[in-house]
Amino acid sequence: MRAIVHVSLKPGVLDPQGRAVADALGRLGFDTVREARVGKTIELDLADGLSAEAAEAQVKAMCEKLLANPVIERFRVEIA
Amino acid sequence: MRAIVHVSLKPGVLDPQGRAVADALGRLGFDTVREARVGKTIELDLADGLSAEAAEAQVKAMCEKLLANPVIERFRVEIA
Repeated sequence: MRAIVHVSLKPGVLDPQGRAVADALGRLGFDTVREARVGKTIELDLADGLSAEAAEAQVKAMCEKLLANPVIERFRVEIA
Repeated sequence: MRAIVHVSLKPGVLDPQGRAVADALGRLGFDTVREARVGKTIELDLADGLSAEAAEAQVKAMCEKLLANPVIERFRVEIA
């Protein structure tokens, strides 16, 4: 079973990496870019035999314990 | 207009960050994780007035020039 975790900064949290990307795109001539924000995606390959509900609960626990920083990040879990 | 770029390592390319995530999850007791791969997401806020086609073509050019390394990464553009 495959799970995909999308982690992004909460709105309002400063994103220096996104700022650097937007500035670099502007310098390359892409002047339509107003803002860029960078997040991460973690694709997990899980052992077979888990139900989708059990997998989702486990992956949410992984996000809370390791994959995301709940103070500044939000996450979304997708079970594929 | 918003565009989302998903960048991930091509299959077969070694992913030390993903490996570290999988190992750490295993140490935390999540023993159902067989593999983890880490990618990134860049959310772009583009100036209004672009057509979806023009936006997609521009964002693909951004990927080829800056956002992805086509040697080891693949990307997917989503126009929202």
